[in-house]
Amino acid sequence: MSDATNIMDTTEIELGAIVDRAAAAFPLVAAALPDERGRWLAAIADGLESAADQLVPVAQRESNLSEQRLRGELARTAYQLRTFITALHSGDLFEVIIDHADPAHTVAPAPDLRRMLQPLGPIAVYSASNFPFAFSVAGGDTASALATGCPVVVKAHPGHAELSAMVTDIVLDALASAGAPDGTFATVYGFEAGTALLRHPLITAGAFTGSTGGGRALLDIANARDTPIPFYGELGSINPVFITAEAAAARGDEIAVAFASSYTLGAGQFCTKPGVVFAPKGSGFAEAATRAVQSFGAAQLLNNSISERLGHLEAEIAGDPSVEVLVSGGADDDGWLPSLYRVSSAVARAHPWIVTEERFGPSAVVVEYESTEEFDALACLIDGTLTATLQASAETDEGVGDLITVLSDRAGRVLWNEWPTGVTVSAAMHHGGPYPSTTSLFTSVGITAARRFLRPVCYQSIPDGLLPSALRETNPLGIARTVDGVYEAPAS
Amino acid sequence: MSDATNIMDTTEIELGAIVDRAAAAFPLVAAALPDERGRWLAAIADGLESAADQLVPVAQRESNLSEQRLRGELARTAYQLRTFITALHSGDLFEVIIDHADPAHTVAPAPDLRRMLQPLGPIAVYSASNFPFAFSVAGGDTASALATGCPVVVKAHPGHAELSAMVTDIVLDALASAGAPDGTFATVYGFEAGTALLRHPLITAGAFTGSTGGGRALLDIANARDTPIPFYGELGSINPVFITAEAAAARGDEIAVAFASSYTLGAGQFCTKPGVVFAPKGSGFAEAATRAVQSFGAAQLLNNSISERLGHLEAEIAGDPSVEVLVSGGADDDGWLPSLYRVSSAVARAHPWIVTEERFGPSAVVVEYESTEEFDALACLIDGTLTATLQASAETDEGVGDLITVLSDRAGRVLWNEWPTGVTVSAAMHHGGPYPSTTSLFTSVGITAARRFLRPVCYQSIPDGLLPSALRETNPLGIARTVDGVYEAPAS
Repeated sequence: MSDATNIMDTTEIELGAIVDRAAAAFPLVAAALPDERGRWLAAIADGLESAADQLVPVAQRESNLSEQRLRGELARTAYQLRTFITALHSGDLFEVIIDHADPAHTVAPAPDLRRMLQPLGPIAVYSASNFPFAFSVAGGDTASALATGCPVVVKAHPGHAELSAMVTDIVLDALASAGAPDGTFATVYGFEAGTALLRHPLITAGAFTGSTGGGRALLDIANARDTPIPFYGELGSINPVFITAEAAAARGDEIAVAFASSYTLGAGQFCTKPGVVFAPKGSGFAEAATRAVQSFGAAQLLNNSISERLGHLEAEIAGDPSVEVLVSGGADDDGWLPSLYRVSSAVARAHPWIVTEERFGPSAVVVEYESTEEFDALACLIDGTLTATLQASAETDEGVGDLITVLSDRAGRVLWNEWPTGVTVSAAMHHGGPYPSTTSLFTSVGITAARRFLRPVCYQSIPDGLLPSALRETNPLGIARTVDGVYEAPAS
Repeated sequence: MSDATNIMDTTEIELGAIVDRAAAAFPLVAAALPDERGRWLAAIADGLESAADQLVPVAQRESNLSEQRLRGELARTAYQLRTFITALHSGDLFEVIIDHADPAHTVAPAPDLRRMLQPLGPIAVYSASNFPFAFSVAGGDTASALATGCPVVVKAHPGHAELSAMVTDIVLDALASAGAPDGTFATVYGFEAGTALLRHPLITAGAFTGSTGGGRALLDIANARDTPIPFYGELGSINPVFITAEAAAARGDEIAVAFASSYTLGAGQFCTKPGVVFAPKGSGFAEAATRAVQSFGAAQLLNNSISERLGHLEAEIAGDPSVEVLVSGGADDDGWLPSLYRVSSAVARAHPWIVTEERFGPSAVVVEYESTEEFDALACLIDGTLTATLQASAETDEGVGDLITVLSDRAGRVLWNEWPTGVTVSAAMHHGGPYPSTTSLFTSVGITAARRFLRPVCYQSIPDGLLPSALRETNPLGIARTVDGVYEAPAS
């Protein structure tokens, strides 16, 4: 039984039938032309938007997130689906490279070679608790897998099972009305079904957003299969912020207010929440952040298991004698109040767990440094992270260029005088980072996320009429291709 | 002690020092401009070519391969190194995407986002036995890792340890003369050093070409680390060939001779050796192939462990009562004679091991089918494979288009009326395939092989002067970039 009282867990027999249908659909889904798949995505986006008034109240009830936030997230989810339509039409998703035969090739006569990316097969998508629309049933993973031509089986998050069932119906209706093959999409429920899904031999990749513990357990399942499969997990992230002395002096109060807003946004339940900030000792930053946070009210967390986990972690850090509690948060009648801690850089270096443990919720640590010469060593305390942020006053800040280089080796996105919460859906976005922030070299946001579900195939000397249409000499799809080393733009 | 008598195994302490030097070199190697890294690769290619007369005799003695083959392989290896110079200069390796700030973005105001691929860190490269130049010390994995800005630590193959030491000296001299940082490259020797290398916390990825057993063992090590790392293994491959009835009727004898040449080329020790051919029953193909193979002499295999393994597998298949021995090969005084077996499609379907077991060496199986309607079922017997080949007479052959689609889902490269041995080094080449032929979604041949050692990093609103030069507004490197959705060609 799932958390939602009226939705039953998917049984082993049901799961087998669902994956079999997905596998049977795969050749048809893969063969659908790019524009056809684009119409499926458009239909899902339209369906979500049309049902916003029914969906948002259920999402509010199940997630405790605000109506405004959820309406924004739904709009982003629809936009996300539609960005793949453009990428399908231009052919950017397929990375077509054509090298015509070259009898005079330096090494040996070269045959006609035509390479494109093709879909892997049925994909298991694990919904996140904290984005009931954007990283859930019809979220970015589903959008990118469907765009590539892969059927999708979603494991619903128990925290919003009723919403998941509603969105599933919308997706199924949209796909049916747009002519997608039966079996293109399904949702399963329950913990057992989730692990059995990843073990199923016909599943070809997994995508997950959630905790480090849960993600690593699933990664190990994917790796231990007779046929290992890619598992794209987005796990924990600290998202450190470095404030230079110049920036703290010039606008410390402003940065403190913005920091307080960022780490408490959505009750601190973003994977890009800035959990640790490095600020100059004696600058008054910690005091300013304390004042800013104290004015914030309580917010309900997503669910009880997140509250329990946060309570445990908060007790651990607050109880450590080397940690100063600046703001003592915790549960009250209206939800969870933000907390803020302070340690010296010496303490952080001696007890790295203080800065490496992700406290999912409205909790953050200020680490006070003595000198910017410590930046490299402090940056190296942090494990792989989705983002790293600099607050600096000018390009002349001492050592800032080096710090950007160091941070770019540990983070997937480096920000300057902005905040990591709020992930733009854009081709240039990278939402990913070294382990444990993700288990992959790919993004889960933006059109390059589709690359996770694609593999190259090369066609050697195949007659033109038997090639996939993307590779035919006349380029009937009018897509972007690199031919004999020269890029050819899409037709429109 | 390695197989070569005068080369000692690398000790644990030596290994630690080597990886530490590679890690210390990483920031410098990563910071080297593309053209600078290109000069390192050119110096290695030049060094190999200059030393050909010294290297080839040693390679002959250690590998039993012919002088002609080894000179060709050395030329290919030098070419392979140089192809990355072009890709570095054009910027194709870095996949730069720039999206300028868009205050009117549909979802929310979008910041300036600039994404490029950046190197992972020190890479462990495992040499193959069967390509002492092209998939060894200065082979494709080393070339692609160095091109991306990753230091390389090669685990030498014990089958050609003396050659490995000679090539290592050439690479080190070339890198030093071209100004590469100390620690950019090193070679280690011995089984223990090989596994310890992959476990070393500062190693960020592995690349391997070899057996399914050895590759899977290393994959499991990479996956079980506290911080799992990508392991790009090329393991076993069957490389099936399908001959239509029309093709067999029109040119069966010619196909039989070409097949015999392909599966015995280099004593059958290519990862792309066609190990199984599906031919129409009663067409005389098996008899023609038998005649062709009987005229072939013996060839020395690469080393004793390959002979022993092949002897075991040959005894297994020859001893099965459902298998007909067409040509009984095996060891004689001059080396190993080719063997050929025949089964019906019914036997192959009942005993799939006959067609799924890779027999590395000059050994192949003819499967005789009754009807092309069996093609799909027969194709599905084969596990993931590097290549799949069709021999067909015309586009009008019944069902051939469908078979290409089915094969493209199980193979990395699909060929038409050509043979899979001989892998062109080209941008459009894909040398990879579903598990177990590889453990990855990437190629190990051609410039896109570099993608294995790169990860995206996104820079958000960073001042222009602090950006990597590839991302600065004026495009000082003159590389290919996609700006606001529009491709901009490289300067030259």
